[in-house]
Amino acid sequence: MPTDFAKTRAQFHLPEGVIYLDGNSLGPLPHAAAARVAGCIGQEWGEMLIRGWNKAGWMDQPSRVGDRIARLIGAEAGHVVMGDTLSIKVYQALASCLQMSDRKVILSDTGNFPSDLYMAQGLCATLGDRSLKTVAPEAVLEAIDETVAVVLITEVDYRTGRRHDMKALSARAHEKGALIVWDLAHSAGAFPVGVAEGGADFAVGCTYKYLNSGPGGPAFIYVAPRHAETARPALSGWLGHEAPFAFDTDYRPGRGIERMRVGTPPVLQLAALEAALDIWDQVDLDDLRARSLELTDRFIAGVEATCPGLTLVTPRDHARRGSQVSFSHPEGYAIMQALIHEGVIGDFRAPDILRFGFTPLYTTFEDVDGAVAVLGRIMTTGAWDRPEFKTRAKVT
Amino acid sequence: MPTDFAKTRAQFHLPEGVIYLDGNSLGPLPHAAAARVAGCIGQEWGEMLIRGWNKAGWMDQPSRVGDRIARLIGAEAGHVVMGDTLSIKVYQALASCLQMSDRKVILSDTGNFPSDLYMAQGLCATLGDRSLKTVAPEAVLEAIDETVAVVLITEVDYRTGRRHDMKALSARAHEKGALIVWDLAHSAGAFPVGVAEGGADFAVGCTYKYLNSGPGGPAFIYVAPRHAETARPALSGWLGHEAPFAFDTDYRPGRGIERMRVGTPPVLQLAALEAALDIWDQVDLDDLRARSLELTDRFIAGVEATCPGLTLVTPRDHARRGSQVSFSHPEGYAIMQALIHEGVIGDFRAPDILRFGFTPLYTTFEDVDGAVAVLGRIMTTGAWDRPEFKTRAKVT
Repeated sequence: MPTDFAKTRAQFHLPEGVIYLDGNSLGPLPHAAAARVAGCIGQEWGEMLIRGWNKAGWMDQPSRVGDRIARLIGAEAGHVVMGDTLSIKVYQALASCLQMSDRKVILSDTGNFPSDLYMAQGLCATLGDRSLKTVAPEAVLEAIDETVAVVLITEVDYRTGRRHDMKALSARAHEKGALIVWDLAHSAGAFPVGVAEGGADFAVGCTYKYLNSGPGGPAFIYVAPRHAETARPALSGWLGHEAPFAFDTDYRPGRGIERMRVGTPPVLQLAALEAALDIWDQVDLDDLRARSLELTDRFIAGVEATCPGLTLVTPRDHARRGSQVSFSHPEGYAIMQALIHEGVIGDFRAPDILRFGFTPLYTTFEDVDGAVAVLGRIMTTGAWDRPEFKTRAKVT
Repeated sequence: MPTDFAKTRAQFHLPEGVIYLDGNSLGPLPHAAAARVAGCIGQEWGEMLIRGWNKAGWMDQPSRVGDRIARLIGAEAGHVVMGDTLSIKVYQALASCLQMSDRKVILSDTGNFPSDLYMAQGLCATLGDRSLKTVAPEAVLEAIDETVAVVLITEVDYRTGRRHDMKALSARAHEKGALIVWDLAHSAGAFPVGVAEGGADFAVGCTYKYLNSGPGGPAFIYVAPRHAETARPALSGWLGHEAPFAFDTDYRPGRGIERMRVGTPPVLQLAALEAALDIWDQVDLDDLRARSLELTDRFIAGVEATCPGLTLVTPRDHARRGSQVSFSHPEGYAIMQALIHEGVIGDFRAPDILRFGFTPLYTTFEDVDGAVAVLGRIMTTGAWDRPEFKTRAKVT
């Protein structure tokens, strides 16, 4: 049975008068998340108190939820665990990889999230004898050579929406004796991801974007089964210990993916995520991809027909596109503020990118047409050219 | 005006038929936390969507809440920030200290949380040329010498409730040219802490114990003003960057304590914490300490009078006591299960410790007397000696 996207949309709270095209930055509220968190607070924390760790299953929640993420990213069950933030998970993955290699270089590309690059820089500075090398996104394949310990790649570029070829880059990395870490922040929930098939050694991602877990929702980490029992966690936390409640003074890594846990899991944020995943259980990822491409194609065609001043920076080629569309314009910031003022919410990424996320779970063709109409009007009338649209907010 | 502890107690949900003496492991639910989180979900996430980062103040929440923690731990305003878990904050603090020193040793004690020791071990294994040395708690002062880069001490022993002398150990560390990191997990909210006066270089702690932020509540980190602009964060995250939304590819640490932020803050968990802190705003910490000592003294006297088989392991000396009381018994696990079965909730810590937390915000003298009566009956009748009380749960 094909996925019923009208039914999935009805499960989200979408504010009146808003066309929301920023679900690639923060997904909207699933109606059920409010009740789910309220239950976690009232019936679990309130009534069970400390007993919630056993009775409500809080202790196993990171791996239980991880198994639900596994389906969405094409991972083997039992090899994904939740916790912390994406930055922490990037650090864990990179540190484990460096520990497995005598080589000195982390390779990434200039289209990667700065946040990922920062974590790599911090790790290199801490270690002293390793360094981060970045090349242009299109030069990554060629740059993977025998000096590279680990390749750190975000599958979909957060600015352009350009998608890397996971299989090709992973294969090249392995051919050259390197490991590869995939950041799925703009992939998980955006299209069917295949970390096992794609050869990822580690994969990491967040859940508050396409997966709709809410602000500050926990991250996930995948470790390929071939590394699960050998990867050494640099962040060797209590809950990643073989026997946390033995209170031994020496660390011994837990079984498999469990060792990638660090501290106490964020139980309230995980409850919200679980409610969001109930919607994902109703979704066929191939249907999702087909719909995503229809939505993004329609938006590209509409904007190009009405806004000649905007330049498409997202690949037209479906195979190279995530689930967002970006245009550039020197006044991109002001144009986006004008759009938001009119109820069309996308976002801006420095220096000049207007970014629009398309999320079939709740984005409709009417949303696309409505957004195109508003954007066309703003560009035609120059309505963005007002001082109040040019004042930068703290968060863009 | 003295603190009205009847009024603070009324602000918590305390289940019927339960005497809760485990607030040093997970504090109970403040009534207001449920409404606060519901508002954060419904009005902020639901209605503001991505705009919540600015409009609801999510982006500044970690330092805004950090300032409220600062009062409770005697820190200078503007030098505490929230985020991540305690384990991550331990790692950040230790890594920063090691970066400031050419010495090779992290010194801690065998009474420290295993979780802290594990993080130190992971950091040492990652760095390769540093090592963790542990000595008995009473031997720490003497063990601080010129080989020590950093001393990592948990102020209150999680098993015994024994309190270290912050001023004396900090002074000794500085005299020997070492830095000192204080873990306040069992201090913050247990009594007035003075990190500035006590000479701490860094301090870290969690909020889900005495501070009542709920399961998985965020941690905090304090960096002394003298290090604030020079400490180098190993976990150099996006939100600790000088200009996160410039999306530069090179990391530059943010101003002062901001650089200890890593990834996206856990907004829902922080909302629960903020509600809990509204109760703390009504509390004078000297009143809290006086009441805590009355409660713990009364419990010690009551148990010693009725349970000769239990051995007190908590110091009688007020200056050396946190806000918990522990007794040892070879059958401690079963005795604690029998107690919990009777509605008196404390916890067990391997190998033989019965642990009881006393939290004046909601623990009454009637609770103490009730717990003594139940424990006395269990010990007198041998009611703990049943197979079902000897089966170990996953979380103890």
